[in-house]
Amino acid sequence: MARTPRSSKLLAASRGDVEVDLLIRGGKIFSTATREWVETSLAIADGVIVGWGDRPAKEIIEVAGRHIVPAFIDAHMHLESTKLWIDEFVPLALANGTTTVIADPHEIANVFGIPGVSALIDAAKKQRFQFLVSASSCVPASKFESPGATLGPDSVASLLDDHGAIGVAEVMNYPGVIYGDDDVLAKIASANGRRVDGHAPSVRGKDLDAYLTAGVESDHECTTFEEAHEKRQKGMWIFIREGSASKNLRELIKTVKVGGTDRVALCTDDREPSTLIEDGHMNDCLKIAVECGISPEDALVLATSNPAEYHQLYDLGSLGPGYQADVVVLEDLVSFKTNMVFHRGVQVAKDNIALPAAINLSPPPTWMLSSVNTEQKKHYDFFIDLDDSDIVRVIVVHENSLLTNERHTPATQLDNLSRIAVIERHHKTGRYGVGFVEGFGIERGAIASTVAHDAHNIMVVGGLDESSNNDMNIAIERLREIGGGQVAVLDGKILAEVRLNVGGLMSTLRAPEVAAQLRTLEEAVHSGLKGTLKEPFMTLSFLGLSVIPDLRITDLGLIDVVAFDKTTLKV
Amino acid sequence: MARTPRSSKLLAASRGDVEVDLLIRGGKIFSTATREWVETSLAIADGVIVGWGDRPAKEIIEVAGRHIVPAFIDAHMHLESTKLWIDEFVPLALANGTTTVIADPHEIANVFGIPGVSALIDAAKKQRFQFLVSASSCVPASKFESPGATLGPDSVASLLDDHGAIGVAEVMNYPGVIYGDDDVLAKIASANGRRVDGHAPSVRGKDLDAYLTAGVESDHECTTFEEAHEKRQKGMWIFIREGSASKNLRELIKTVKVGGTDRVALCTDDREPSTLIEDGHMNDCLKIAVECGISPEDALVLATSNPAEYHQLYDLGSLGPGYQADVVVLEDLVSFKTNMVFHRGVQVAKDNIALPAAINLSPPPTWMLSSVNTEQKKHYDFFIDLDDSDIVRVIVVHENSLLTNERHTPATQLDNLSRIAVIERHHKTGRYGVGFVEGFGIERGAIASTVAHDAHNIMVVGGLDESSNNDMNIAIERLREIGGGQVAVLDGKILAEVRLNVGGLMSTLRAPEVAAQLRTLEEAVHSGLKGTLKEPFMTLSFLGLSVIPDLRITDLGLIDVVAFDKTTLKV
Repeated sequence: MARTPRSSKLLAASRGDVEVDLLIRGGKIFSTATREWVETSLAIADGVIVGWGDRPAKEIIEVAGRHIVPAFIDAHMHLESTKLWIDEFVPLALANGTTTVIADPHEIANVFGIPGVSALIDAAKKQRFQFLVSASSCVPASKFESPGATLGPDSVASLLDDHGAIGVAEVMNYPGVIYGDDDVLAKIASANGRRVDGHAPSVRGKDLDAYLTAGVESDHECTTFEEAHEKRQKGMWIFIREGSASKNLRELIKTVKVGGTDRVALCTDDREPSTLIEDGHMNDCLKIAVECGISPEDALVLATSNPAEYHQLYDLGSLGPGYQADVVVLEDLVSFKTNMVFHRGVQVAKDNIALPAAINLSPPPTWMLSSVNTEQKKHYDFFIDLDDSDIVRVIVVHENSLLTNERHTPATQLDNLSRIAVIERHHKTGRYGVGFVEGFGIERGAIASTVAHDAHNIMVVGGLDESSNNDMNIAIERLREIGGGQVAVLDGKILAEVRLNVGGLMSTLRAPEVAAQLRTLEEAVHSGLKGTLKEPFMTLSFLGLSVIPDLRITDLGLIDVVAFDKTTLKV
Repeated sequence: MARTPRSSKLLAASRGDVEVDLLIRGGKIFSTATREWVETSLAIADGVIVGWGDRPAKEIIEVAGRHIVPAFIDAHMHLESTKLWIDEFVPLALANGTTTVIADPHEIANVFGIPGVSALIDAAKKQRFQFLVSASSCVPASKFESPGATLGPDSVASLLDDHGAIGVAEVMNYPGVIYGDDDVLAKIASANGRRVDGHAPSVRGKDLDAYLTAGVESDHECTTFEEAHEKRQKGMWIFIREGSASKNLRELIKTVKVGGTDRVALCTDDREPSTLIEDGHMNDCLKIAVECGISPEDALVLATSNPAEYHQLYDLGSLGPGYQADVVVLEDLVSFKTNMVFHRGVQVAKDNIALPAAINLSPPPTWMLSSVNTEQKKHYDFFIDLDDSDIVRVIVVHENSLLTNERHTPATQLDNLSRIAVIERHHKTGRYGVGFVEGFGIERGAIASTVAHDAHNIMVVGGLDESSNNDMNIAIERLREIGGGQVAVLDGKILAEVRLNVGGLMSTLRAPEVAAQLRTLEEAVHSGLKGTLKEPFMTLSFLGLSVIPDLRITDLGLIDVVAFDKTTLKV
């Protein structure tokens, strides 16, 4: 990213010949390069840090010995996972000291394609925030999914060259990379000197070598120290993830203890609104890193200068003159709670709470609110003709894991299973796939969601009886009515719902409301539907992701991910 | 720099499905990210590192436990200072383990402008080497110099956008930066996301803040620990220089001991051919750094991954899969002598000596050999009319310093001085400036040079008598005849000379010949002309550089650098 050209006036402020806008005085400034704390004043003019040391100033803020650090940078995240629209996410992030995220918009891209990404970028421009987008490289995740839009190599190049994407986003199709798929290699090549982010869970040894040889430069999917350390040794950047579901920081921080901080950054990847509200954002990652025994200075580098360096953000992530004045005054180096947050020299948070300056409404365009394109009041009959001698493939889900298993079950022994269906919802094709799933504990009623990675069709799970089939239909129709979201239905009644009307993924409500609705919905599944999974909608939302082993389901039917092909319900 | 797109065939080699070209086996591979040594094999195909660990290979090289490191990168240098043309410099650099330099071609740019830079880039393309050029930002160094060509903001932008310059080269006009000169700021802005190198000797405090605020990102002119450390704390990159004349490593390495290796790289800036032959290149810097108590691992980072990171060379400076196969097998971690050197997987040196693969002749175009454009056999009369009551300004030079002083001397007391003249030699204007200089010890005869920073006009020093005036004329004419170089003349006879016929700056001879000629020339000055300076031509070549205090001389006459204006010979 290029710096904004500098004016003579700015240099005069730097020299002390004219007043600066703001002087932050009495604190300890963190030097990311030398990891020292320097007791001096920070002078800011026109949103830029113009000097260290006292100067004539229009405004002086005293910080009474507090630690002054660069605002935080999230090396990789998906806005859609927060279920919040940009103008609601930003104040939450700012309150926690984050002024920059590198977002892969591949969920909204699956729904709306480039127009969706472009609308999000436009809305983000109205925020006091750097919402930097990388070019989603795997839309759809595979040919077995039916998204609203597809991004080929030309679209990826267009996101980079015409829409300001700063790099290529996580290349999830790692078999495609390793085996040299032309389209995937073309997408990587379109980076053309910009960064190429990876997504290579458990990929190691020669497979990792091939993945790296192709030109992928980072990974945020490591789950063990050994995996992360091998990747770093081989020159790959590791983004240590601490999301709502995937929490890898405590394990992976070992690679920093062994090998220092080079080529490591922190990221959140996927954080639910409740996590953002209760635990925070990058400051929460810093707190945990220090709890694990990393020095505050090393931890800070992982959330400031390191991600800036990787993402070529040469005017962010440090507090030297010439850097953008994105500044956090910390309460302490243990909780990492923010005392003050500044974006381009404007104070946007105080005592870990967003100030009015942080709130800038930029609602999504109306067309983003109508993404559930299914036939009105259509009745689906999800029953499957089975003989007693038939054996069927069942998707088995587990608590705390996105992996599934495939179980072969006689048609006579389906009693404690649930039915699962995926209804194409982007192009009103009426196409749907149906199967059986074990592990939800739902034997009556239904739950449904338009959040369904990555194609985000409607995914519905219900009991096997006639009444549940009716509830599944009610759930599907309800999602159509409210423009997308998540819902629980029992005996013909809607127990609870969350309206995610932006693309069927995000809400236009306030964060606490969304968090409360999500909690109520989960409680309804537990108490009303006797669901046994702790986070049934999290599990549900990944059952259509045709690149995570073993067995998945899309509107095209069952997908054997290991064989990477469609398969039949009956064995 | 973008990576070359990767082929399916390369990935097959990476997976081990087809033979790789080369396997380097039995060594310890250096991981720049974790600073560990990993005992494994390095697999190379199509010039790219494709994996760690054994694979089927067409060729296997055993290295018997030796240390394998990324080839070295010189963060900042001037080819012209080596006095060698590119095809002679490259084998020397390769033999010493350097495969990449970032060169500021501002000497040749002063002589020939963009065509000269472009010809150099073209010649460099024929080498097995990365000769990366940055866009010279200060040609000429000031308005008081008369170069062959001038590079305005448009030319700097053209070097970046049309000629592949990777960043903006050292912004020497630091007063212009600090006081917001429009042209200088425009040149900085033309970087547009690429790097902006600095040149700010002794600039600290608020001046440094302004220099940084303008967007300059690095400096290689620090001479004290305190200066370097302040710059680093403020986020500036420090290139620690160890040249032939300016040797800053032993002092500046303290900043690494105090604050670690972040934002530090090593560079040579200006190395004479004798230094390259006798001491080496970046490997010499590494040897000294380790002598100073830095660990070999930290030192290596300063000459490999750090300069690669700063200069956005994402496929250089590390040995992971996907990186270009620029590899050095070291003899040891003390001498840093090379055992083998590979560029793009091709062995180019063995036992610190270049192999035939390293030698690729690419002579300069003929027009570069005719840069001395003065009137044939013109006789200059350098005598100055002085009254006994006159007082003149004298340039005083010192051993081991580029700084000069201004001394006011009565016209009656000029006995032990020398005369100095600068003759414009690019546009045949006949213009010349004349003055007095103290410190050379030359009272009879003359020395002259077309190497004369930065405009590279002819600079000549001689005794005050008629015979010396004649010798000065002979020297000037000789430089015209041989197309530029350096020469010593006494009593009408040429004692010694070095032919630097490429732009008057570089030789087309072999490095040892050039070094020998330079040595002979200096000896001639010492014994024949009784010159007292250890390196008279080094001192001479900087006396026209109108940006180094206090008093300089150009073809326009005396320049008071402190006042930054022309001045008169008579006080």
